[in-house]
Amino acid sequence: MESLNNDLLHTPDGMRDTYGIEMTRKQTVVGKIRERIRLYGYEQIQTPTLEFYDVFNSEVGTTPVRELYKLLDNDGNLLVLRPDFTPSVARCAVKYFSEEKAPIRFTYEGSVFGNARGLQGKLCEMTQMGVELINAPSVYADAEILALLIDALLQAGLTQFQISVGNVDYFKGICQSAGVEERTEGELRDALSGKNYYAAEEILRSRGLDRKTRDLFLKATRFVSTRKELSRFITEDMHPRARAAIERLMELDEVMEAYGFSQYISYDLSLLSKYRYYTGIVFKGYTYGAGDCIASGGRYDSLLSHYGKSAAAIGVMIQIDYLVEALRRQNIEVGNTQDRVTVRATQEDWAEKIREAMRSRNEGRITVLEG
Amino acid sequence: MESLNNDLLHTPDGMRDTYGIEMTRKQTVVGKIRERIRLYGYEQIQTPTLEFYDVFNSEVGTTPVRELYKLLDNDGNLLVLRPDFTPSVARCAVKYFSEEKAPIRFTYEGSVFGNARGLQGKLCEMTQMGVELINAPSVYADAEILALLIDALLQAGLTQFQISVGNVDYFKGICQSAGVEERTEGELRDALSGKNYYAAEEILRSRGLDRKTRDLFLKATRFVSTRKELSRFITEDMHPRARAAIERLMELDEVMEAYGFSQYISYDLSLLSKYRYYTGIVFKGYTYGAGDCIASGGRYDSLLSHYGKSAAAIGVMIQIDYLVEALRRQNIEVGNTQDRVTVRATQEDWAEKIREAMRSRNEGRITVLEG
Repeated sequence: MESLNNDLLHTPDGMRDTYGIEMTRKQTVVGKIRERIRLYGYEQIQTPTLEFYDVFNSEVGTTPVRELYKLLDNDGNLLVLRPDFTPSVARCAVKYFSEEKAPIRFTYEGSVFGNARGLQGKLCEMTQMGVELINAPSVYADAEILALLIDALLQAGLTQFQISVGNVDYFKGICQSAGVEERTEGELRDALSGKNYYAAEEILRSRGLDRKTRDLFLKATRFVSTRKELSRFITEDMHPRARAAIERLMELDEVMEAYGFSQYISYDLSLLSKYRYYTGIVFKGYTYGAGDCIASGGRYDSLLSHYGKSAAAIGVMIQIDYLVEALRRQNIEVGNTQDRVTVRATQEDWAEKIREAMRSRNEGRITVLEG
Repeated sequence: MESLNNDLLHTPDGMRDTYGIEMTRKQTVVGKIRERIRLYGYEQIQTPTLEFYDVFNSEVGTTPVRELYKLLDNDGNLLVLRPDFTPSVARCAVKYFSEEKAPIRFTYEGSVFGNARGLQGKLCEMTQMGVELINAPSVYADAEILALLIDALLQAGLTQFQISVGNVDYFKGICQSAGVEERTEGELRDALSGKNYYAAEEILRSRGLDRKTRDLFLKATRFVSTRKELSRFITEDMHPRARAAIERLMELDEVMEAYGFSQYISYDLSLLSKYRYYTGIVFKGYTYGAGDCIASGGRYDSLLSHYGKSAAAIGVMIQIDYLVEALRRQNIEVGNTQDRVTVRATQEDWAEKIREAMRSRNEGRITVLEG
């Protein structure tokens, strides 16, 4: 019966087991963030791991189709493993709360799946926690989501991190005013969302865009931290959409000050997401020691209409695996393991020891019965 | 943009959304059970949702191959959506703890997937929580697992439930002594595990088994509650394996008495699991108002050798969805929703109201900021 078969011990590419101290850390971080989200009045929602393909199809603007894990059900319907919670939660908001006009606050946690073909070392199953605030168009909603993110990261024990905030309307306004074609806009978006400024400049040049427009795209790649600095990006002849995008960020900055969280925020007008459903502010959270950004989100005022109802909404997602990894590399203590009591039983006293162990557990101590 | 598309709102067959009070109940139940499991010294482990087919192949004796959700990865490997946590945890125990001789205590929680073709209303994605106790051959290990199950159900708020306990060695011993062929044994197991006694009797009759053997199978379908009653199943000329199976249950009954949990247990020598990897005691938990059994488990002393190392082990899994459904139907209150504070902000006082909401959250109150 003893035949060591290594094939049976492996996990698929990009999938892994988590246990021991790493799992304790992850559990602790999840618990702390869950509690913080609860205190902001967000309610848990659970959606299926498998959904119909159309929930995530290319019109939605989430993960590209080639990166989805796909399978057929018994009736030949195409199903996918959820790559992103936001479309699922948007579907639920339309399905169950289409009459609701007041803000709806949802929180979720679980795995998302991305078939990151050829990306060595990239996780294909990731644990995410996040919130969605639906029926909420205001800058106060933007601020609540950012404040909750910052608060959650602080609760998890992180102290050194930065949230970069942009507004996709800046990019769209400039494209509109320069008459950039849709295809070029897509290419530019890909280059800028990947922070590939050389490629962006090359695209702008080869499409014969004038120097002023090129500058609008490229000078926006400078980070700034205050609304005063933001205001300097406004120019006289700027497209109203781009100007409004900057003004929204300036208002946001004022609200974030009331939260006392300004120091964690910087603005980056060139920030774009790979998710095409974002319509307003977008943001990403960074710290050191993480393989990728630890959080991302944005406003998606058109996404719900894909499922049948227009509603303004904004959300954020935290990449738990990257956050836990960053905490470890930054030597930040989380999940200080609670003391364990060991009760040893023998053939003679097992009945008594069982009762002792049960008393100890009922008093809230982790108690291992051995013997 | 407003086009109500019902196709986009549906979830696949057997998959569903959970939200509102139902989700609060589920979260509360999961939290209570998680805490109880922790107090017994079990440590969280997380395994991938997708695993290589071989981890769950037909030799393993878990969910039948036709009920697995299958897909191919980029390299053409066959992957399956985990149908059962126990094989995955067994794989991990061999992979990471093959040198460990002392008992290992693991706990897991998450979704399992079964493509229950044609079974109307049956869930295809289910939330399970469970524990596995590895390197633990003794009756005390059997008792710890049953005690933890009972304790967890009580913590969840359930009061009326019954754990039926059997021992597959009773069945195997009788088959062995009567010289039942493997195919007949499989048919009998299917009939008995489905509680289809008429089919079992028909199989026994048609295979020409003598009356005494038939009686050994069929009188075992009576439930009993004490070791004295169990002892009456022992006959002089019984196969030693069947006798040892009964004696093990008698010892178990004595240990369960020390836990103070005897009233929740009854014995059923005809109890068999659809999982073929069980080798000793097997059990199922029942209550009313649940669509199916709310818990099941057993001893699987040969399963780890499939992954390369022999080790005695036992585990239990709780079907959270069925348990939550039963609690609701039994009108048992769980997840008494905590009071929520609403702070209303206006254009004039938003900065002050933001600070008020943050103070309230920091003092542990669920606080919704409106305005």
